[in-house]
Amino acid sequence: MLGIGIAAVDDILRVPHLPEADGKVRVTGSERACGGLAATALVAAARLGVRAGYAGVLGTDDLSDFVLRTLASEGVDVAHAARLPQAGPGRSIIVVDPDGRRIVYSDPSGALVAAELAPTPDVVRSTRVLMVDHVRVPACVRAARVARAAGIPVVGDLERAEHPRFPDLLALVDHLVIPVAFGARLTGARDPDAILRGLRAPGRTVVLTAGAEGAWWLGPDATAVPAHRPAFPVTVVDTTGCGDAFHGAYAAGLATGLDLPARVRLASAVGALTATRSGGQAGLPDRPTVEAFMDAHPG
Amino acid sequence: MLGIGIAAVDDILRVPHLPEADGKVRVTGSERACGGLAATALVAAARLGVRAGYAGVLGTDDLSDFVLRTLASEGVDVAHAARLPQAGPGRSIIVVDPDGRRIVYSDPSGALVAAELAPTPDVVRSTRVLMVDHVRVPACVRAARVARAAGIPVVGDLERAEHPRFPDLLALVDHLVIPVAFGARLTGARDPDAILRGLRAPGRTVVLTAGAEGAWWLGPDATAVPAHRPAFPVTVVDTTGCGDAFHGAYAAGLATGLDLPARVRLASAVGALTATRSGGQAGLPDRPTVEAFMDAHPG
Repeated sequence: MLGIGIAAVDDILRVPHLPEADGKVRVTGSERACGGLAATALVAAARLGVRAGYAGVLGTDDLSDFVLRTLASEGVDVAHAARLPQAGPGRSIIVVDPDGRRIVYSDPSGALVAAELAPTPDVVRSTRVLMVDHVRVPACVRAARVARAAGIPVVGDLERAEHPRFPDLLALVDHLVIPVAFGARLTGARDPDAILRGLRAPGRTVVLTAGAEGAWWLGPDATAVPAHRPAFPVTVVDTTGCGDAFHGAYAAGLATGLDLPARVRLASAVGALTATRSGGQAGLPDRPTVEAFMDAHPG
Repeated sequence: MLGIGIAAVDDILRVPHLPEADGKVRVTGSERACGGLAATALVAAARLGVRAGYAGVLGTDDLSDFVLRTLASEGVDVAHAARLPQAGPGRSIIVVDPDGRRIVYSDPSGALVAAELAPTPDVVRSTRVLMVDHVRVPACVRAARVARAAGIPVVGDLERAEHPRFPDLLALVDHLVIPVAFGARLTGARDPDAILRGLRAPGRTVVLTAGAEGAWWLGPDATAVPAHRPAFPVTVVDTTGCGDAFHGAYAAGLATGLDLPARVRLASAVGALTATRSGGQAGLPDRPTVEAFMDAHPG
Protein backbone atom coordinates (compact mmCIF):
# COMPACT_ATOMS: atom_id res chain seq x y z
CA MET A 1 0.00 0.00 0.00
CA LEU A 2 1.07 3.53 -0.73
CA GLY A 3 0.32 6.71 1.26
CA ILE A 4 0.76 10.20 -0.14
CA GLY A 5 -0.98 12.31 2.50
CA ILE A 6 0.41 14.00 5.55
CA ALA A 7 3.31 12.96 7.73
CA ALA A 8 3.79 15.02 10.85
CA VAL A 9 6.00 15.59 13.82
CA ASP A 10 4.17 15.57 17.13
CA ASP A 11 5.95 17.21 20.04
CA ILE A 12 4.38 16.09 23.29
CA LEU A 13 5.06 18.59 26.07
CA ARG A 14 4.38 17.51 29.66
CA VAL A 15 3.33 20.32 31.94
CA PRO A 16 2.40 20.34 35.65
CA HIS A 17 -0.92 22.02 34.78
CA LEU A 18 -2.64 23.35 31.65
CA PRO A 19 -2.05 27.09 31.58
CA GLU A 20 -4.65 29.84 31.66
CA ALA A 21 -4.64 32.76 29.22
CA ASP A 22 -1.62 35.03 29.86
CA GLY A 23 -0.06 32.21 31.84
CA LYS A 24 3.42 30.76 31.59
CA VAL A 25 4.25 27.16 32.31
CA ARG A 26 7.53 25.31 32.51
CA VAL A 27 7.68 22.18 30.38
CA THR A 28 8.83 19.30 32.61
CA GLY A 29 9.40 16.76 29.88
CA SER A 30 8.97 16.34 26.19
CA GLU A 31 9.10 13.68 23.58
CA ARG A 32 8.93 13.75 19.83
CA ALA A 33 6.87 11.31 17.84
CA CYS A 34 5.99 10.79 14.22
CA GLY A 35 2.32 11.36 13.49
CA GLY A 36 0.07 12.49 10.67
CA LEU A 37 -2.79 10.60 9.02
CA ALA A 38 -0.79 8.98 6.23
CA ALA A 39 2.34 8.22 8.25
CA THR A 40 0.44 6.68 11.16
CA ALA A 41 -1.69 4.53 8.85
CA LEU A 42 1.42 3.29 7.04
CA VAL A 43 3.17 2.37 10.28
CA ALA A 44 0.02 0.57 11.42
CA ALA A 45 0.11 -1.49 8.22
CA ALA A 46 3.85 -2.13 8.45
CA ARG A 47 3.46 -3.47 12.00
CA LEU A 48 0.92 -5.90 10.61
CA GLY A 49 3.59 -7.13 8.23
CA VAL A 50 2.12 -5.49 5.13
CA ARG A 51 4.40 -3.69 2.69
CA ALA A 52 3.82 0.05 2.97
CA GLY A 53 5.42 2.99 1.23
CA TYR A 54 5.29 6.77 1.74
CA ALA A 55 5.32 8.90 -1.40
CA GLY A 56 4.34 12.32 -0.07
CA VAL A 57 6.50 15.41 0.19
CA LEU A 58 8.88 16.37 2.98
CA GLY A 59 11.48 19.08 3.42
CA THR A 60 15.20 19.11 3.94
CA ASP A 61 15.11 20.05 7.62
CA ASP A 62 15.73 18.10 10.82
CA LEU A 63 12.01 17.47 11.28
CA SER A 64 11.75 15.86 7.87
CA ASP A 65 14.83 13.77 8.62
CA PHE A 66 13.12 12.64 11.81
CA VAL A 67 9.99 11.56 9.94
CA LEU A 68 11.92 9.67 7.28
CA ARG A 69 14.15 7.99 9.87
CA THR A 70 11.14 6.93 11.93
CA LEU A 71 9.22 5.59 8.95
CA ALA A 72 12.26 3.71 7.69
CA SER A 73 12.86 2.19 11.13
CA GLU A 74 9.30 0.88 11.02
CA GLY A 75 9.95 -0.75 7.68
CA VAL A 76 7.99 1.80 5.64
CA ASP A 77 9.61 2.32 2.24
CA VAL A 78 10.47 6.01 1.83
CA ALA A 79 12.33 5.75 -1.48
CA HIS A 80 9.55 7.65 -3.27
CA ALA A 81 9.11 10.46 -0.75
CA ALA A 82 9.94 13.78 -2.38
CA ARG A 83 12.04 16.38 -0.58
CA LEU A 84 11.76 20.09 -1.28
CA PRO A 85 13.60 22.84 0.62
CA GLN A 86 10.44 24.79 1.53
CA ALA A 87 8.30 21.82 2.47
CA GLY A 88 8.19 19.96 5.74
CA PRO A 89 6.04 17.67 7.82
CA GLY A 90 2.89 18.84 9.48
CA ARG A 91 3.41 19.88 13.06
CA SER A 92 1.42 19.21 16.17
CA ILE A 93 2.24 20.37 19.64
CA ILE A 94 0.39 18.28 22.19
CA VAL A 95 0.42 19.65 25.72
CA VAL A 96 -0.48 17.06 28.39
CA ASP A 97 -1.08 17.54 32.11
CA PRO A 98 -0.57 14.83 34.76
CA ASP A 99 -4.26 13.82 34.49
CA GLY A 100 -3.91 13.19 30.76
CA ARG A 101 -5.90 16.26 29.79
CA ARG A 102 -4.45 17.77 26.66
CA ILE A 103 -4.41 20.69 24.30
CA VAL A 104 -3.45 20.10 20.67
CA TYR A 105 -2.05 22.84 18.45
CA SER A 106 -1.84 21.63 14.87
CA ASP A 107 -0.12 23.31 11.97
CA PRO A 108 -0.19 21.44 8.63
CA SER A 109 1.34 24.31 6.66
CA GLY A 110 4.68 22.60 5.98
CA ALA A 111 2.81 19.72 4.36
CA LEU A 112 0.81 22.14 2.19
CA VAL A 113 3.92 23.25 0.32
CA ALA A 114 3.78 21.49 -3.05
CA ALA A 115 0.46 19.95 -2.06
CA GLU A 116 -0.08 19.22 -5.74
CA LEU A 117 3.11 17.15 -6.11
CA ALA A 118 2.06 13.53 -6.66
CA PRO A 119 4.30 10.53 -7.23
CA THR A 120 4.78 9.47 -10.83
CA PRO A 121 2.07 7.26 -12.36
CA ASP A 122 4.50 4.32 -12.35
CA VAL A 123 4.89 4.57 -8.59
CA VAL A 124 1.14 4.74 -8.07
CA ARG A 125 0.56 1.79 -10.37
CA SER A 126 3.08 -0.32 -8.44
CA THR A 127 0.90 -0.52 -5.33
CA ARG A 128 -2.10 -2.64 -4.40
CA VAL A 129 -3.90 0.00 -2.37
CA LEU A 130 -3.62 3.80 -2.45
CA MET A 131 -4.31 5.81 0.71
CA VAL A 132 -5.30 9.46 0.43
CA ASP A 133 -6.20 12.07 3.05
CA HIS A 134 -7.78 15.53 3.27
CA VAL A 135 -4.53 17.48 3.72
CA ARG A 136 -2.57 17.14 0.47
CA VAL A 137 -5.76 17.20 -1.61
CA PRO A 138 -4.48 18.14 -5.09
CA ALA A 139 -1.75 15.48 -5.01
CA CYS A 140 -4.26 12.95 -3.70
CA VAL A 141 -6.65 13.75 -6.54
CA ARG A 142 -3.92 13.27 -9.14
CA ALA A 143 -2.72 9.98 -7.70
CA ALA A 144 -6.26 8.71 -7.13
CA ARG A 145 -7.08 9.27 -10.83
CA VAL A 146 -4.08 7.16 -11.81
CA ALA A 147 -5.08 4.45 -9.32
CA ARG A 148 -8.69 4.45 -10.52
CA ALA A 149 -7.61 4.06 -14.13
CA ALA A 150 -5.40 1.13 -13.12
CA GLY A 151 -8.09 -0.57 -11.04
CA ILE A 152 -6.21 0.05 -7.78
CA PRO A 153 -8.56 0.71 -4.85
CA VAL A 154 -8.36 4.13 -3.19
CA VAL A 155 -8.86 4.31 0.60
CA GLY A 156 -9.79 7.75 1.93
CA ASP A 157 -8.86 8.97 5.42
CA LEU A 158 -10.94 12.14 5.37
CA GLU A 159 -11.95 14.33 8.30
CA ARG A 160 -12.19 17.85 6.87
CA ALA A 161 -14.05 19.04 3.79
CA GLU A 162 -12.94 22.65 3.43
CA HIS A 163 -10.46 22.22 0.58
CA PRO A 164 -12.07 23.49 -2.67
CA ARG A 165 -11.13 20.26 -4.43
CA PHE A 166 -12.46 18.03 -1.66
CA PRO A 167 -15.51 16.98 -3.78
CA ASP A 168 -13.16 15.80 -6.57
CA LEU A 169 -11.24 13.71 -4.08
CA LEU A 170 -14.35 12.29 -2.46
CA ALA A 171 -15.65 11.17 -5.84
CA LEU A 172 -12.47 9.15 -6.42
CA VAL A 173 -12.55 7.22 -3.14
CA ASP A 174 -13.51 3.55 -3.34
CA HIS A 175 -13.25 2.92 0.39
CA LEU A 176 -14.50 5.84 2.41
CA VAL A 177 -13.49 5.23 6.02
CA ILE A 178 -14.46 8.23 8.13
CA PRO A 179 -15.61 9.20 11.60
CA VAL A 180 -19.39 9.01 11.93
CA ALA A 181 -19.48 12.69 12.96
CA PHE A 182 -17.79 13.70 9.72
CA GLY A 183 -20.20 11.54 7.78
CA ALA A 184 -23.04 13.37 9.50
CA ARG A 185 -21.59 16.71 8.41
CA LEU A 186 -21.15 15.54 4.83
CA THR A 187 -24.69 14.17 4.48
CA GLY A 188 -26.76 16.19 6.92
CA ALA A 189 -28.05 12.88 8.28
CA ARG A 190 -27.72 11.82 11.91
CA ASP A 191 -28.55 8.13 11.89
CA PRO A 192 -25.57 5.92 10.87
CA ASP A 193 -27.67 3.94 8.40
CA ALA A 194 -28.86 7.15 6.78
CA ILE A 195 -25.30 8.49 6.66
CA LEU A 196 -24.11 5.26 4.99
CA ARG A 197 -26.86 5.48 2.38
CA GLY A 198 -26.11 9.17 1.83
CA LEU A 199 -22.47 8.39 1.08
CA ARG A 200 -23.21 5.40 -1.14
CA ALA A 201 -21.76 5.56 -4.68
CA PRO A 202 -21.26 2.93 -7.39
CA GLY A 203 -18.52 0.54 -6.32
CA ARG A 204 -17.87 2.37 -3.07
CA THR A 205 -17.55 0.82 0.36
CA VAL A 206 -18.37 3.14 3.27
CA VAL A 207 -17.18 2.59 6.85
CA LEU A 208 -18.12 4.88 9.73
CA THR A 209 -15.98 4.76 12.86
CA ALA A 210 -17.43 5.74 16.20
CA GLY A 211 -14.86 4.87 18.87
CA ALA A 212 -16.48 3.02 21.75
CA GLU A 213 -19.70 2.71 19.76
CA GLY A 214 -18.03 0.53 17.17
CA ALA A 215 -18.25 0.81 13.40
CA TRP A 216 -20.96 0.76 10.74
CA TRP A 217 -20.36 -0.24 7.15
CA LEU A 218 -22.03 -0.63 3.81
CA GLY A 219 -20.61 -2.76 1.02
CA PRO A 220 -20.21 -1.68 -2.62
CA ASP A 221 -23.05 -3.75 -4.11
CA ALA A 222 -26.30 -1.98 -4.91
CA THR A 223 -28.09 -4.63 -2.83
CA ALA A 224 -25.82 -4.28 0.24
CA VAL A 225 -27.40 -3.31 3.55
CA PRO A 226 -25.81 -1.47 6.49
CA ALA A 227 -24.02 -3.56 9.08
CA HIS A 228 -22.59 -2.76 12.51
CA ARG A 229 -20.07 -4.26 14.86
CA PRO A 230 -19.50 -3.16 18.44
CA ALA A 231 -16.11 -1.94 19.58
CA PHE A 232 -13.76 -4.41 21.24
CA PRO A 233 -13.94 -3.93 25.01
CA VAL A 234 -10.72 -2.21 26.11
CA THR A 235 -9.63 0.27 28.75
CA VAL A 236 -8.90 3.47 26.89
CA VAL A 237 -5.65 5.21 27.80
CA ASP A 238 -5.02 7.47 24.82
CA THR A 239 -7.04 7.71 21.62
CA THR A 240 -4.32 9.59 19.69
CA GLY A 241 -3.88 8.02 16.28
CA CYS A 242 -6.68 5.45 16.68
CA GLY A 243 -8.51 6.65 13.60
CA ASP A 244 -5.38 6.50 11.48
CA ALA A 245 -4.54 3.08 12.92
CA PHE A 246 -8.00 1.92 11.85
CA HIS A 247 -7.37 3.18 8.31
CA GLY A 248 -3.96 1.58 8.06
CA ALA A 249 -5.24 -1.77 9.26
CA TYR A 250 -8.26 -1.54 6.96
CA ALA A 251 -5.99 -0.84 3.97
CA ALA A 252 -3.63 -3.61 5.06
CA GLY A 253 -6.58 -6.00 5.17
CA LEU A 254 -7.59 -4.87 1.70
CA ALA A 255 -4.05 -5.38 0.39
CA THR A 256 -3.96 -8.91 1.80
CA GLY A 257 -7.35 -9.94 0.41
CA LEU A 258 -9.55 -9.91 3.54
CA ASP A 259 -13.27 -9.55 2.90
CA LEU A 260 -15.13 -6.49 4.18
CA PRO A 261 -16.31 -7.81 7.59
CA ALA A 262 -12.82 -9.20 8.25
CA ARG A 263 -11.22 -5.88 7.31
CA VAL A 264 -13.50 -3.99 9.64
CA ARG A 265 -12.82 -6.51 12.40
CA LEU A 266 -9.04 -6.23 11.94
CA ALA A 267 -9.21 -2.45 11.81
CA SER A 268 -11.41 -2.34 14.92
CA ALA A 269 -8.98 -4.55 16.80
CA VAL A 270 -5.98 -2.42 15.81
CA GLY A 271 -7.84 0.77 16.71
CA ALA A 272 -8.86 -0.64 20.08
CA LEU A 273 -5.37 -1.87 20.95
CA THR A 274 -3.91 1.50 19.94
CA ALA A 275 -6.26 3.17 22.42
CA THR A 276 -4.95 1.01 25.27
CA ARG A 277 -1.46 2.46 25.01
CA SER A 278 -0.05 5.92 25.30
CA GLY A 279 1.16 7.66 22.15
CA GLY A 280 -0.08 7.47 18.57
CA GLN A 281 2.38 5.40 16.53
CA ALA A 282 4.01 4.15 19.74
CA GLY A 283 0.74 2.45 20.64
CA LEU A 284 0.26 0.60 17.35
CA PRO A 285 0.20 -3.17 17.87
CA ASP A 286 2.20 -5.70 15.91
CA ARG A 287 0.67 -8.67 14.08
CA PRO A 288 1.08 -11.29 16.88
CA THR A 289 -0.50 -8.92 19.42
CA VAL A 290 -3.49 -8.26 17.17
CA GLU A 291 -3.98 -11.94 16.38
CA ALA A 292 -3.82 -12.94 20.04
CA PHE A 293 -6.29 -10.17 20.85
CA MET A 294 -8.72 -11.26 18.12
CA ASP A 295 -8.39 -14.91 19.19
CA ALA A 296 -9.32 -13.83 22.71
CA HIS A 297 -12.31 -11.87 21.40
CA PRO A 298 -14.01 -14.02 18.79
CA GLY A 299 -16.86 -12.64 16.74
CA MET B 1 30.37 42.59 26.63
CA LEU B 2 30.10 38.82 26.80
CA GLY B 3 27.01 36.68 27.51
CA ILE B 4 27.18 33.03 28.48
CA GLY B 5 23.61 32.34 29.58
CA ILE B 6 20.68 31.07 27.61
CA ALA B 7 19.87 31.55 23.95
CA ALA B 8 16.49 30.26 22.88
CA VAL B 9 14.22 29.70 19.94
CA ASP B 10 10.75 31.15 20.37
CA ASP B 11 8.05 29.75 18.12
CA ILE B 12 5.09 32.11 18.05
CA LEU B 13 1.90 30.30 17.05
CA ARG B 14 -1.12 32.39 16.10
CA VAL B 15 -4.45 30.78 16.92
CA PRO B 16 -8.03 32.00 16.41
CA HIS B 17 -8.71 31.42 20.13
CA LEU B 18 -6.84 30.05 23.13
CA PRO B 19 -7.91 26.42 23.55
CA GLU B 20 -9.65 24.87 26.54
CA ALA B 21 -8.49 21.63 28.14
CA ASP B 22 -9.02 18.70 25.77
CA GLY B 23 -9.41 21.19 22.93
CA LYS B 24 -7.75 21.21 19.55
CA VAL B 25 -6.93 24.37 17.65
CA ARG B 26 -5.56 24.94 14.16
CA VAL B 27 -2.52 27.21 14.04
CA THR B 28 -3.21 29.94 11.49
CA GLY B 29 0.28 31.37 11.34
CA SER B 30 3.63 30.99 12.96
CA GLU B 31 6.94 32.72 13.14
CA ARG B 32 10.23 31.80 14.66
CA ALA B 33 12.33 34.25 16.65
CA CYS B 34 15.51 34.16 18.63
CA GLY B 35 14.97 34.73 22.35
CA GLY B 36 16.50 33.82 25.68
CA LEU B 37 17.85 36.10 28.39
CA ALA B 38 21.46 36.22 27.22
CA ALA B 39 20.76 36.31 23.49
CA THR B 40 18.16 39.07 23.75
CA ALA B 41 20.39 41.19 25.98
CA LEU B 42 23.30 40.80 23.56
CA VAL B 43 21.19 41.83 20.57
CA ALA B 44 19.92 44.83 22.55
CA ALA B 45 23.53 45.89 23.14
CA ALA B 46 24.57 45.23 19.55
CA ARG B 47 21.74 47.44 18.25
CA LEU B 48 23.12 50.21 20.48
CA GLY B 49 26.41 49.80 18.63
CA VAL B 50 28.24 48.07 21.50
CA ARG B 51 30.43 45.05 20.79
CA ALA B 52 28.73 41.95 22.12
CA GLY B 53 29.72 38.28 22.04
CA TYR B 54 27.92 35.05 22.87
CA ALA B 55 30.02 32.32 24.53
CA GLY B 56 27.37 29.89 25.75
CA VAL B 57 26.66 26.40 24.46
CA LEU B 58 24.49 25.37 21.54
CA GLY B 59 23.86 22.14 19.71
CA THR B 60 24.41 20.94 16.17
CA ASP B 61 20.75 21.01 15.14
CA ASP B 62 18.72 23.35 12.94
CA LEU B 63 17.50 25.32 15.94
CA SER B 64 21.06 26.04 17.04
CA ASP B 65 21.94 27.06 13.49
CA PHE B 66 19.00 29.44 13.58
CA VAL B 67 20.19 31.05 16.82
CA LEU B 68 23.77 31.46 15.60
CA ARG B 69 22.65 32.84 12.24
CA THR B 70 20.32 35.32 13.92
CA LEU B 71 22.92 36.49 16.42
CA ALA B 72 25.55 36.84 13.70
CA SER B 73 23.15 38.83 11.52
CA GLU B 74 22.72 41.24 14.44
CA GLY B 75 26.47 41.69 14.68
CA VAL B 76 26.88 39.57 17.81
CA ASP B 77 30.20 37.70 17.74
CA VAL B 78 29.53 33.96 18.01
CA ALA B 79 33.12 32.76 17.52
CA HIS B 80 33.29 31.56 21.14
CA ALA B 81 29.94 29.77 21.26
CA ALA B 82 30.48 26.06 21.93
CA ARG B 83 28.54 23.42 20.01
CA LEU B 84 27.82 19.97 21.41
CA PRO B 85 25.67 17.32 19.73
CA GLN B 86 23.31 16.83 22.69
CA ALA B 87 22.91 20.50 23.56
CA GLY B 88 20.56 23.01 22.02
CA PRO B 89 18.93 26.34 22.61
CA GLY B 90 16.17 26.78 25.13
CA ARG B 91 12.72 26.50 23.60
CA SER B 92 9.61 28.56 24.09
CA ILE B 93 6.31 28.07 22.36
CA ILE B 94 4.25 31.22 22.58
CA VAL B 95 0.60 30.86 21.61
CA VAL B 96 -1.13 34.16 20.83
CA ASP B 97 -4.79 34.87 20.13
CA PRO B 98 -6.10 37.80 18.03
CA ASP B 99 -6.49 39.94 21.20
CA GLY B 100 -2.83 39.46 22.08
CA ARG B 101 -3.56 37.13 24.97
CA ARG B 102 -0.88 34.48 25.19
CA ILE B 103 0.22 31.24 26.74
CA VAL B 104 3.95 30.56 27.05
CA TYR B 105 5.36 27.04 27.28
CA SER B 106 9.06 27.19 28.09
CA ASP B 107 11.56 24.36 28.02
CA PRO B 108 15.16 25.25 28.83
CA SER B 109 16.36 21.64 28.89
CA GLY B 110 18.49 21.88 25.73
CA ALA B 111 20.42 24.75 27.29
CA LEU B 112 21.00 22.73 30.46
CA VAL B 113 23.14 20.19 28.63
CA ALA B 114 26.75 21.03 29.56
CA ALA B 115 25.46 23.81 31.81
CA GLU B 116 28.88 23.77 33.47
CA LEU B 117 30.79 24.47 30.24
CA ALA B 118 32.23 27.98 30.51
CA PRO B 119 34.40 29.79 27.98
CA THR B 120 38.13 29.72 28.62
CA PRO B 121 39.52 32.29 31.10
CA ASP B 122 41.19 34.13 28.19
CA VAL B 123 37.83 34.67 26.51
CA VAL B 124 36.26 35.92 29.74
CA ARG B 125 39.19 38.27 30.39
CA SER B 126 38.88 39.76 26.90
CA THR B 127 35.54 41.45 27.65
CA ARG B 128 34.63 44.62 29.51
CA VAL B 129 31.38 43.34 31.00
CA LEU B 130 30.25 39.79 31.71
CA MET B 131 26.54 38.96 31.65
CA VAL B 132 25.24 35.92 33.53
CA ASP B 133 21.75 34.49 34.01
CA HIS B 134 19.93 31.95 36.17
CA VAL B 135 19.75 29.18 33.57
CA ARG B 136 23.31 28.01 32.91
CA VAL B 137 24.29 28.57 36.55
CA PRO B 138 27.44 26.43 36.92
CA ALA B 139 29.04 27.94 33.80
CA CYS B 140 28.05 31.39 34.94
CA VAL B 141 29.67 30.82 38.35
CA ARG B 142 32.91 29.69 36.73
CA ALA B 143 33.06 32.59 34.33
CA ALA B 144 32.02 35.10 37.00
CA ARG B 145 34.92 33.98 39.22
CA VAL B 146 37.36 34.63 36.38
CA ALA B 147 35.77 38.03 35.71
CA ARG B 148 35.86 38.99 39.39
CA ALA B 149 39.53 38.10 39.67
CA ALA B 150 40.25 40.23 36.60
CA GLY B 151 38.21 43.21 37.82
CA ILE B 152 35.60 42.79 35.09
CA PRO B 153 32.09 43.71 36.27
CA VAL B 154 29.48 40.95 36.32
CA VAL B 155 25.89 41.87 35.41
CA GLY B 156 23.26 39.39 36.57
CA ASP B 157 19.96 38.78 34.75
CA LEU B 158 18.32 36.62 37.40
CA GLU B 159 14.67 35.70 37.76
CA ARG B 160 14.67 32.23 39.33
CA ALA B 161 16.52 31.05 42.45
CA GLU B 162 15.90 27.30 42.46
CA HIS B 163 19.30 26.15 41.18
CA PRO B 164 21.34 24.78 44.12
CA ARG B 165 24.28 26.97 43.16
CA PHE B 166 22.19 30.12 42.78
CA PRO B 167 23.61 31.59 46.04
CA ASP B 168 27.17 31.18 44.70
CA LEU B 169 26.19 33.02 41.54
CA LEU B 170 24.34 35.77 43.38
CA ALA B 171 27.41 36.41 45.54
CA LEU B 172 29.52 37.02 42.41
CA VAL B 173 27.21 39.58 40.80
CA ASP B 174 28.38 43.20 40.85
CA HIS B 175 25.33 44.58 39.07
CA LEU B 176 22.17 42.86 40.18
CA VAL B 177 19.41 43.94 37.79
CA ILE B 178 16.22 42.05 38.61
CA PRO B 179 12.44 42.41 38.58
CA VAL B 180 11.17 43.94 41.81
CA ALA B 181 8.95 40.89 42.38
CA PHE B 182 11.97 38.61 42.31
CA GLY B 183 13.81 40.94 44.68
CA ALA B 184 10.85 40.68 47.03
CA ARG B 185 11.06 36.88 46.93
CA LEU B 186 14.81 36.92 47.60
CA THR B 187 14.60 39.31 50.55
CA GLY B 188 11.15 38.77 51.99
CA ALA B 189 10.72 42.55 51.85
CA ARG B 190 7.90 44.27 49.95
CA ASP B 191 8.97 47.90 49.82
CA PRO B 192 11.47 48.62 47.01
CA ASP B 193 13.78 50.56 49.32
CA ALA B 194 13.81 47.66 51.77
CA ILE B 195 14.45 45.20 48.93
CA LEU B 196 17.37 47.31 47.70
CA ARG B 197 18.89 47.41 51.19
CA GLY B 198 18.30 43.68 51.61
CA LEU B 199 20.27 42.96 48.42
CA ARG B 200 23.09 45.39 49.19
CA ALA B 201 26.59 43.89 49.24
CA PRO B 202 30.08 45.46 49.17
CA GLY B 203 30.72 46.94 45.75
CA ARG B 204 27.36 45.81 44.38
CA THR B 205 24.89 47.95 42.45
CA VAL B 206 21.25 46.84 42.67
CA VAL B 207 18.55 47.80 40.14
CA LEU B 208 14.92 46.75 40.48
CA THR B 209 12.75 46.88 37.36
CA ALA B 210 9.00 47.29 37.67
CA GLY B 211 7.62 47.85 34.17
CA ALA B 212 5.22 50.77 34.11
CA GLU B 213 6.22 51.69 37.66
CA GLY B 214 9.76 52.46 36.59
CA ALA B 215 12.98 51.38 38.26
CA TRP B 216 14.64 51.70 41.66
CA TRP B 217 18.38 51.51 42.21
CA LEU B 218 21.05 51.66 44.86
CA GLY B 219 24.68 52.41 44.09
CA PRO B 220 27.67 50.43 45.34
CA ASP B 221 28.95 52.92 47.93
CA ALA B 222 28.14 52.23 51.58
CA THR B 223 26.69 55.75 51.78
CA ALA B 224 24.45 55.41 48.70
CA VAL B 225 20.71 55.89 49.13
CA PRO B 226 17.89 54.35 47.07
CA ALA B 227 16.77 56.27 43.98
CA HIS B 228 13.82 55.89 41.61
CA ARG B 229 12.91 56.95 38.11
CA PRO B 230 9.48 56.62 36.56
CA ALA B 231 8.97 54.62 33.38
CA PHE B 232 8.98 56.46 30.07
CA PRO B 233 5.39 57.01 28.94
CA VAL B 234 4.71 54.61 26.08
CA THR B 235 1.80 52.60 24.71
CA VAL B 236 2.57 49.01 25.52
CA VAL B 237 2.04 46.51 22.69
CA ASP B 238 4.11 43.53 23.79
CA THR B 239 6.36 43.24 26.83
CA THR B 240 8.19 40.13 25.57
CA GLY B 241 11.93 40.59 26.06
CA CYS B 242 11.67 43.98 27.79
CA GLY B 243 13.52 42.78 30.87
CA ASP B 244 16.32 41.31 28.80
CA ALA B 245 16.45 44.47 26.69
CA PHE B 246 16.85 46.48 29.89
CA HIS B 247 19.77 44.25 30.94
CA GLY B 248 21.48 44.45 27.60
CA ALA B 249 21.21 48.22 27.50
CA TYR B 250 22.36 48.50 31.10
CA ALA B 251 25.42 46.36 30.34
CA ALA B 252 26.05 48.34 27.16
CA GLY B 253 25.96 51.53 29.20
CA LEU B 254 28.42 50.02 31.65
CA ALA B 255 30.74 48.95 28.84
CA THR B 256 30.71 52.47 27.39
CA GLY B 257 31.36 54.25 30.69
CA LEU B 258 27.94 55.73 31.51
CA ASP B 259 27.34 56.52 35.18
CA LEU B 260 24.63 54.68 37.11
CA PRO B 261 21.71 57.12 36.59
CA ALA B 262 22.57 57.36 32.88
CA ARG B 263 22.72 53.57 32.59
CA VAL B 264 19.33 53.17 34.22
CA ARG B 265 17.93 55.91 31.97
CA LEU B 266 19.29 54.26 28.82
CA ALA B 267 18.04 50.84 29.94
CA SER B 268 14.61 52.25 30.80
CA ALA B 269 14.36 53.89 27.38
CA VAL B 270 15.35 50.68 25.57
CA GLY B 271 12.93 48.63 27.69
CA ALA B 272 10.10 51.10 27.02
CA LEU B 273 10.72 51.20 23.26
CA THR B 274 10.86 47.40 23.13
CA ALA B 275 7.41 47.30 24.73
CA THR B 276 5.96 49.49 21.98
CA ARG B 277 6.66 46.91 19.32
CA SER B 278 5.59 43.35 18.78
CA GLY B 279 8.14 40.58 19.30
CA GLY B 280 11.10 40.32 21.66
CA GLN B 281 14.30 40.86 19.71
CA ALA B 282 12.32 42.20 16.76
CA GLY B 283 11.19 45.10 18.95
CA LEU B 284 14.66 46.15 20.14
CA PRO B 285 15.46 49.71 19.09
CA ASP B 286 18.65 50.85 17.41
CA ARG B 287 20.89 53.62 18.74
CA PRO B 288 19.40 56.54 16.71
CA THR B 289 15.86 55.56 17.76
CA VAL B 290 16.82 55.45 21.43
CA GLU B 291 18.65 58.76 21.26
CA ALA B 292 15.78 60.49 19.52
CA PHE B 293 13.39 59.04 22.11
CA MET B 294 15.54 60.20 25.03
CA ASP B 295 15.92 63.65 23.46
CA ALA B 296 12.13 63.85 23.26
CA HIS B 297 11.80 62.79 26.90
CA PRO B 298 14.42 64.71 28.87
CA GLY B 299 15.05 63.91 32.54
